[in-house]
Amino acid sequence: MTQETGLTRIAVDAMGGDSAPAEIVAGAVQAAADGGVAIFLVGDPEQVSAQLAKHDAKALPIQIVPSEGVVAEGEQPMLAMRQKPKASVIVATGMVKKGAADACVSMGSTGAAMAAAAYILGVIDGIDRPALGGPVVGLAPKTVILDVGTNVDCRPSQLVSFAVIGDVFARQLLGVERPRIALLSVGAEAGKGNRQVKETSELLQKTSLNFVGNVEANDILLDKADVVVCDGFVGNVVMKLSEGFGSALAEHLRTSLSGKLAQEEVDGIAKAIHDLSNPAEGAGGGPLLGVNGVSVVGHGRARAESLKRAIGIAKMAVETRFIEKINEELGKVREAVRE
Amino acid sequence: MTQETGLTRIAVDAMGGDSAPAEIVAGAVQAAADGGVAIFLVGDPEQVSAQLAKHDAKALPIQIVPSEGVVAEGEQPMLAMRQKPKASVIVATGMVKKGAADACVSMGSTGAAMAAAAYILGVIDGIDRPALGGPVVGLAPKTVILDVGTNVDCRPSQLVSFAVIGDVFARQLLGVERPRIALLSVGAEAGKGNRQVKETSELLQKTSLNFVGNVEANDILLDKADVVVCDGFVGNVVMKLSEGFGSALAEHLRTSLSGKLAQEEVDGIAKAIHDLSNPAEGAGGGPLLGVNGVSVVGHGRARAESLKRAIGIAKMAVETRFIEKINEELGKVREAVRE
Repeated sequence: MTQETGLTRIAVDAMGGDSAPAEIVAGAVQAAADGGVAIFLVGDPEQVSAQLAKHDAKALPIQIVPSEGVVAEGEQPMLAMRQKPKASVIVATGMVKKGAADACVSMGSTGAAMAAAAYILGVIDGIDRPALGGPVVGLAPKTVILDVGTNVDCRPSQLVSFAVIGDVFARQLLGVERPRIALLSVGAEAGKGNRQVKETSELLQKTSLNFVGNVEANDILLDKADVVVCDGFVGNVVMKLSEGFGSALAEHLRTSLSGKLAQEEVDGIAKAIHDLSNPAEGAGGGPLLGVNGVSVVGHGRARAESLKRAIGIAKMAVETRFIEKINEELGKVREAVRE
Repeated sequence: MTQETGLTRIAVDAMGGDSAPAEIVAGAVQAAADGGVAIFLVGDPEQVSAQLAKHDAKALPIQIVPSEGVVAEGEQPMLAMRQKPKASVIVATGMVKKGAADACVSMGSTGAAMAAAAYILGVIDGIDRPALGGPVVGLAPKTVILDVGTNVDCRPSQLVSFAVIGDVFARQLLGVERPRIALLSVGAEAGKGNRQVKETSELLQKTSLNFVGNVEANDILLDKADVVVCDGFVGNVVMKLSEGFGSALAEHLRTSLSGKLAQEEVDGIAKAIHDLSNPAEGAGGGPLLGVNGVSVVGHGRARAESLKRAIGIAKMAVETRFIEKINEELGKVREAVRE
């Protein structure tokens, strides 16, 4: 399996996620059958081949790459990396670094995938640690929000980097021509916000980005911006509250609609509300942002369909030269804002 | 009208709010008719008396106190205070300072009410500017969240003060015996959070408060704490996103239920979802927290019913010695955390 085949080579962490390896292998087989990708299934050879044998996959470009151990959700990632250097997520990420794969995908511990990406691939200039983001609020399916990851204390210059990444994300992955970039704040007026927002606002005005100023949290749902920039603390609050609302309101509706509609209609409406607020599970996953290579992370509860979509995202990121474009743009912007 | 009547004396800003003075006067008349309060309607004497004449209020303990001008939503509060020293909100707040009223209530510009309270009544020790909070998320009607106001850059010691205020709020106004106090963060584990949360967590552990650690944003809806402490930036995001979700999901439901249920049933369900997420309008208002006196602010869109409830909140705050209790508790805690 080489680049000459014209296939995008994806290293899949076959051991990561609640339903691994069964669902991961199933999703990888689907993706390979759809075409365009060659898959490396990184995991325990015995377990993975046993799963693979359940599928009609002999003719597909799928290869097993052995690994030892898996980093579990909740393990301290950096410690786990030292203790399990051959864990599946580390081997998969290492293949990207060595050029043996074009991208890696993991549905296991996000912390582990981040640590592996930061440590093995390295973060790009202007970024302290990998960021996470994308259209994480189901009611705003075209709005990129970042960071929703682990950058909980951000300097204004980091937020500017997020704005650049979000701009490339919206253009390359969502097809927005000239994304409107906004800062999440407590009021739409220019002077409103905390110190971090005010200072970032000044920097963003010096860039060539299409910076449209502040938006408030409710504006996220009103399509007032294509990219909403915030630190990872605030982004996490937005994402978790959105998920919580979806679940709570779906539950509320089950009660208030019960008896008024057929049970399956009630279920359908409640599920729609739930899904509108919990896109992370359905979307498959998102690329780690600000690392030197394509590493897509997904939800631990992911099943085959989600893994297939995550592979699709990885493929698209490779094909659109996502990382290279981010690097180019970050270079330009850093010149403009020069700290 | 004096304290000897046994009535709680409320100075009402009759000119503040979108429907002032008509709805404000109507609500004040209702509150006075219900008993327990004596009302000062602070406003333009002609306009207020014209409204008052529409009601059967002759026998009620209502008195007009003249003022000149009103601070509009969006005006720069401190500037407005200098330019309109006899504006209704300033006169009403001044009556509390002078002891002529036990509490004041305004449905006008929150910024103006805050500035008036901070400037005229003064903030209590350990507080930089008035805080705002309460059960602001409809799906969590017993969970006090603060700050949701203007404290967008907080030192850990300020968050400790908010915890103390929230504790008194939950005990006095919501009847929770020993409120569980939590910090809003990005993970429930003790080590998770930004610098602000980590440092505040250490301080809170030294207090006698029932500090239960961190909660995540979705936990707000799962009754994991009675008081959720955050800075005003994050609190504003929580409140605004909650409102936005309610409106957006109500809209979504109107579409998805349309034709499946009678239109009035659809309307009722959509309204319930909206109200569950937008409690601020219904609740009436909340007391400014951390000021030396009772000043209740409400939603600009408030109508008579909301104003009546806001008066009820003011009365309860006076009767429960809300401010005095906060001051006592803050003193105790400051000794425990001594910076």
